[in-house]
Amino acid sequence: MRTPPDPGAVPRTLEEIPTPALVVDVASLQRNIDRMATFFAAGPCRLRPHVKAHKTPEIARRQLAAGSCTGLTCATVSEAEAVAGLCDDLLLANEVVDAGKCDRLAALAGGGRVTVTVAVDSATGLEAVAAAARARGVTLGVLVDVDVGQGRCGVAPGESALALARAAAGLPGVRLRGVMGYEGHLQPVRDRAERAGRSRAAMQALVDTAALVRAAGLPCEVVSGGGTGTYDLSGRVAGVTEIQAGSYALMDSDYGDVGVPFEQASWILGTVVSRPAPDRCVADCGQKSMTGDHGLPVVRGLPGARVVRLNDEHAVIELPPDATVAVGVRVALVPSHTDPTVNLHDVMYALDHDRVVGVWPIAARGYREQRTAVVGAGA
Amino acid sequence: MRTPPDPGAVPRTLEEIPTPALVVDVASLQRNIDRMATFFAAGPCRLRPHVKAHKTPEIARRQLAAGSCTGLTCATVSEAEAVAGLCDDLLLANEVVDAGKCDRLAALAGGGRVTVTVAVDSATGLEAVAAAARARGVTLGVLVDVDVGQGRCGVAPGESALALARAAAGLPGVRLRGVMGYEGHLQPVRDRAERAGRSRAAMQALVDTAALVRAAGLPCEVVSGGGTGTYDLSGRVAGVTEIQAGSYALMDSDYGDVGVPFEQASWILGTVVSRPAPDRCVADCGQKSMTGDHGLPVVRGLPGARVVRLNDEHAVIELPPDATVAVGVRVALVPSHTDPTVNLHDVMYALDHDRVVGVWPIAARGYREQRTAVVGAGA
Repeated sequence: MRTPPDPGAVPRTLEEIPTPALVVDVASLQRNIDRMATFFAAGPCRLRPHVKAHKTPEIARRQLAAGSCTGLTCATVSEAEAVAGLCDDLLLANEVVDAGKCDRLAALAGGGRVTVTVAVDSATGLEAVAAAARARGVTLGVLVDVDVGQGRCGVAPGESALALARAAAGLPGVRLRGVMGYEGHLQPVRDRAERAGRSRAAMQALVDTAALVRAAGLPCEVVSGGGTGTYDLSGRVAGVTEIQAGSYALMDSDYGDVGVPFEQASWILGTVVSRPAPDRCVADCGQKSMTGDHGLPVVRGLPGARVVRLNDEHAVIELPPDATVAVGVRVALVPSHTDPTVNLHDVMYALDHDRVVGVWPIAARGYREQRTAVVGAGA
Repeated sequence: MRTPPDPGAVPRTLEEIPTPALVVDVASLQRNIDRMATFFAAGPCRLRPHVKAHKTPEIARRQLAAGSCTGLTCATVSEAEAVAGLCDDLLLANEVVDAGKCDRLAALAGGGRVTVTVAVDSATGLEAVAAAARARGVTLGVLVDVDVGQGRCGVAPGESALALARAAAGLPGVRLRGVMGYEGHLQPVRDRAERAGRSRAAMQALVDTAALVRAAGLPCEVVSGGGTGTYDLSGRVAGVTEIQAGSYALMDSDYGDVGVPFEQASWILGTVVSRPAPDRCVADCGQKSMTGDHGLPVVRGLPGARVVRLNDEHAVIELPPDATVAVGVRVALVPSHTDPTVNLHDVMYALDHDRVVGVWPIAARGYREQRTAVVGAGA
């Protein structure tokens, strides 16, 4: 039996980490970060790493330190607040429309240390951002969000985008910086030739829209798009100025299947708590420590084993006939989707081989305002 | 435009709650709790509410206050730690095998104020629990976990269970209290007659195993099983002493489809951030504020609207032709699975109609040891 560790102590080795846990191999992470930075080093397109994939300031710091970056991308105001101290140019690549959140963005821009830019796709949203900026006496950058085929947010390319750009250009409180378009629907396309052709077309629609905006005499220095699945395709379309990739740092089994040249740097560490049948074991890591929204996780280091079910706190694993998995042993599962999986954890344990070299707070996990609310309620 | 609220202030009304957020209608919650307590008031079977579904001490407190309870059920040591102060009988209805976690359970039992009982399904697990108890000079209760058809953890009914019960009965540090078996595979069965027949058979296997244990001269006062889908079926099988239901308090759309007599008491509050097409709007609540593992969430209060996609931070909603949904309006989405959805939030906002009457910490969210690790690391 293992000796019980002091519950207040930081684990020193892989074996001491309480499960379930999110672990990251620092060497693999750093190689992923360096490889992506190197790709963009030659320019003209640059990288704007997306914080939503890891929500971890230590990883954002490493991405910026590796170079080739215009700044950071965020999906929520909470993420922006968590990393605002790390760079001087933050993009919230998402619509923010309510007064409270717009005010928090304006507060981040106060003092002028960091340029804060947000996506807009409606007159209502644009006016909300501008009103918040004016109320604090600051300027917020805006990018017109263009739907390049994803069918989620964004105005249509061309004249609709130009109309919103015109509205932004004339509005006190905001500064039009350009356009963005996320080809999210193309990130998981397995066939590289198909992914290349379709992302080129999507980005061309964005670049053409940027040209239309400039032809109208409006500023448009930023043309932002892309992700881990298309970084080297969309990032080579002339006129695209930056790529918003995030998942490449930690990776997941879904992007692994896409065939991008990054290592699986993170996984979920579990403990086998039950061995009820020759062909089955059950580990203590389920839906509450990793999501199954892009498929079931993949077992690492146990040939022939596969996860057949994820329940709240259980991964049910089918074993090959000769498996010698005992109750109490550790298992490693690679999640199918890193973004929502990371969001389930408060920390990630950083490893150098089997040694724990850091316990990194996932500071942007969840929604910061909810933690404020608890404090406010005195609970 | 709304005036920006003080970000440190607790919201006073539904309208002031920052989105996405988990909200609970207190009157509905209380009716659900009272209805379940009333069902078990006549006995002989009692209720042991499952904390895993809500992870919220305030809800556990209300469940105990409503009566008919033997104690509380937990799925993790973190949950047990979060609610240990509320009752004198805690069941961890799950296998715990590693030394650190077993020690934390033993620590909870220290002082003798609360009886702590844990499920076991292997000799290795049983010995780990007993060793931790002996090291702290306490006794931990154990239930032999029996697989009643779910195909997850648990030993086979009958002789296998009896063998483990014998081992437990002779082992210093533990006290054999009985058997448990979770018919989890039957909870979502839509047809009530089928659900009734199959849960009766599953519980009969458990009751027969208990009889075998008693016939061997061993103690077996606890026969524990059931859930929200089978509480009134398994709870009426003679010999079952307690039902481990949890989802009935908050409910979800999946259990709504099963046809159990509880109200939908909670939902996710979102804000429409984009209205890009006549038949589409996008709200700011995605996979990171509710899970889709039991299906897509259901839109409440907007006839004809339906969620067609959940991304990390977006719910894409298809609208009927005559919908007048504007950017900035609030939407309510009923999640398909309450347990992992609650686990995404730090608080739930408690409502009396549109008034916020409490901000309840979801104290057992995530894994407590990860928060200790952050503090320990000085990060």
